[in-house]
Amino acid sequence: MINIEIITIGNELLSGMTVNTNTAFLGKQLSNAGYKVVRQTSLPDSAQVIKEELHEALQKSTIVIATGGLGPTCDDLTKHAAADLFYSDFYFDESVAAELEKRYGKKLKSLQDQATIPSKAEIIPNEVGTAPGLIFKSKDSLLILLPGVPKELEEMFSKRVLAYIEKNFPVPLKHFSEQVHIFGLPESDLDPHLRHLKHMFPQIETGIYASSGYLTVNFSVLASNKEAGHEILEPCVKFIQENFTDNLYESLSGKIEEAVQSLFIGKGITLSIAESCTGGSIAAHLTRLPGSSKYFLGSLVTYSNNMKIDLLKVTEKMLNESGAVSSEVVDKMAQSVVDMTNSDWGLAVSGIAGPGGGTPDKPVGTIWAAITSRSGDSYAWSMKLNGNREMIIEKTVNIVLGRLYALVKKS
Amino acid sequence: MINIEIITIGNELLSGMTVNTNTAFLGKQLSNAGYKVVRQTSLPDSAQVIKEELHEALQKSTIVIATGGLGPTCDDLTKHAAADLFYSDFYFDESVAAELEKRYGKKLKSLQDQATIPSKAEIIPNEVGTAPGLIFKSKDSLLILLPGVPKELEEMFSKRVLAYIEKNFPVPLKHFSEQVHIFGLPESDLDPHLRHLKHMFPQIETGIYASSGYLTVNFSVLASNKEAGHEILEPCVKFIQENFTDNLYESLSGKIEEAVQSLFIGKGITLSIAESCTGGSIAAHLTRLPGSSKYFLGSLVTYSNNMKIDLLKVTEKMLNESGAVSSEVVDKMAQSVVDMTNSDWGLAVSGIAGPGGGTPDKPVGTIWAAITSRSGDSYAWSMKLNGNREMIIEKTVNIVLGRLYALVKKS
Repeated sequence: MINIEIITIGNELLSGMTVNTNTAFLGKQLSNAGYKVVRQTSLPDSAQVIKEELHEALQKSTIVIATGGLGPTCDDLTKHAAADLFYSDFYFDESVAAELEKRYGKKLKSLQDQATIPSKAEIIPNEVGTAPGLIFKSKDSLLILLPGVPKELEEMFSKRVLAYIEKNFPVPLKHFSEQVHIFGLPESDLDPHLRHLKHMFPQIETGIYASSGYLTVNFSVLASNKEAGHEILEPCVKFIQENFTDNLYESLSGKIEEAVQSLFIGKGITLSIAESCTGGSIAAHLTRLPGSSKYFLGSLVTYSNNMKIDLLKVTEKMLNESGAVSSEVVDKMAQSVVDMTNSDWGLAVSGIAGPGGGTPDKPVGTIWAAITSRSGDSYAWSMKLNGNREMIIEKTVNIVLGRLYALVKKS
Repeated sequence: MINIEIITIGNELLSGMTVNTNTAFLGKQLSNAGYKVVRQTSLPDSAQVIKEELHEALQKSTIVIATGGLGPTCDDLTKHAAADLFYSDFYFDESVAAELEKRYGKKLKSLQDQATIPSKAEIIPNEVGTAPGLIFKSKDSLLILLPGVPKELEEMFSKRVLAYIEKNFPVPLKHFSEQVHIFGLPESDLDPHLRHLKHMFPQIETGIYASSGYLTVNFSVLASNKEAGHEILEPCVKFIQENFTDNLYESLSGKIEEAVQSLFIGKGITLSIAESCTGGSIAAHLTRLPGSSKYFLGSLVTYSNNMKIDLLKVTEKMLNESGAVSSEVVDKMAQSVVDMTNSDWGLAVSGIAGPGGGTPDKPVGTIWAAITSRSGDSYAWSMKLNGNREMIIEKTVNIVLGRLYALVKKS
């Protein structure tokens, strides 16, 4: 088993100024290639701490990938800490210098520093930034240093480092995983089934990940190739699929909007939306995906009551008698947006995301939603959601898209 | 010095299924309160590994905060690993059970599990989810367990855990920091000024962090209290403020939408939006903040050209002659949305977020935006942005809100 550790370096990661996206990127790339990341650590910009932790990680794991601290400024210490650990001196690399000069000109202040390379390291060229990556080899292990800037690291890892790892540390058995995505159910509905599967298939690793409003069940196993992995995982995947037919969706990214997009484009139909409490978030989720313009016409974010009246033909009477958060209002909103845009389906949401605006009758978290089709389907429902403002908005987006998906799929 | 370690638990963090945002949240909250996070580790869902690493962290650091693995499912192992480490048995906590029953009803399947508490732990109530947090105390150190769901952790940490730490581990010298927020400039414009300040005030830590479309300059220093810290940092803060007057904004969260909201509510004026390529993201950013309904009327997300024509009075002639991404079209969109909603200000955006849709003339990343006021101001500009689809949308949102802020502030 090839164990890989990731070490991310930089005070900004520990003080929370920067969210660590490099670990997720590397983790995903390595898992897809069948490798397993067993541990990830973030360290401060301290040469002593970096050296000690690199040393410790190299004792435990076959491959250590450290990111950050390779730049030219005074808080970039990784190169020196690693050279120290491998008893390496430095030399000025003419070809790195020539390449930097070609791209940035002679005036590049950091040229001297960035072209100074530990003599025991191999160079990983950096085509989009100034800091080259470095590989130190010892008897049984590998230390790979990459810059912390996500775009540089991503480019270098995908183009060169992964192939290097696969060549030098091929794995007979790789880790393969498959996911099942489920909307509209709590974790606890799935748990007994997963416990059953764990008991039946002890060699399969099972995980369940809850996001706001949906769940991802992950199965993974060691296998020699993708087909063999698929064969082992299939009974588990099928078991969950068969038990939760009404709540399944398919999505490579795990996001419900991806499933909605495939479904609508597949059927050649269009969607428009009227949003109040979600304030544009449903549209923003849908349009984050390339290709969304093929089915998504637009959204009327009618945040004020006047906009509901002027644009969506909600009446003052409805607002006075039933309130903006009511079956009547969301029905009208969905109907109007279909009429106005001539879309095949319309979705409307109105609710109280809080923290203000709640009443004893309609507390914060009360949501009404409606789905309407041009051919006459009409469906409205209410929900009471827990959490703070952001959670309520996020859950609403995912739940209404789940319902829309289920309804349109059946239609 | 109170050293704090953060341990984040879950296979999904190591396999890259989930980006670890909890570490940044905790790091930021702790730094603001004057504490220092010295190390962060992500671990797999393995009871043995969790127990060993918690043990090791508690030897090295005064406070260990571990997140994740407190839920009711079979891969949630943190509670048991910690109880094991502290030789604690379990009991059924009636008050946790009563609270869960009150919020989720008697049918909650996970009730039994979630109300089972290690007898040596103190309970941190979870008001937005089902898993309570736990605090284990030993002679000189503290182990704090929190759920991994970001919104739950954030609520519990801000409301209870931070105060608990401050009470039990007060610090004589705290780390105080102040930020200056800047929009619309590249890092390299600030760099020489920061180098100058570093030279003048070597005791002050200086950092610059670039987000999509804006920059945060951070100064921090060890001081006995907030006032003393402020006094030391003030010359640096003022120096930057005076050199970049036109590009400053004020925001506790660092987000430009917070500055926009304060400005509009302070002036008692309203805003409406027409969005194309940002697909609802500008509205979603604005409405994420409580109180946004006090100035934000709504957004017309006219993703399709037909919606631009039918709703916003963009003409076919404009679309044919200038294209949807043009000065003429965004001007008309902004003007129409002001007319339709009677808002004081209107903002409109149309662009090519990619990956498809680019032409040699208007490549991916080309954005046109317009800002219009009811009293006759009108301002349109274009930009060429780099990055993938998500980055282009995110940068667009921040840049147009920055321009809106600057224009409205001056008006």
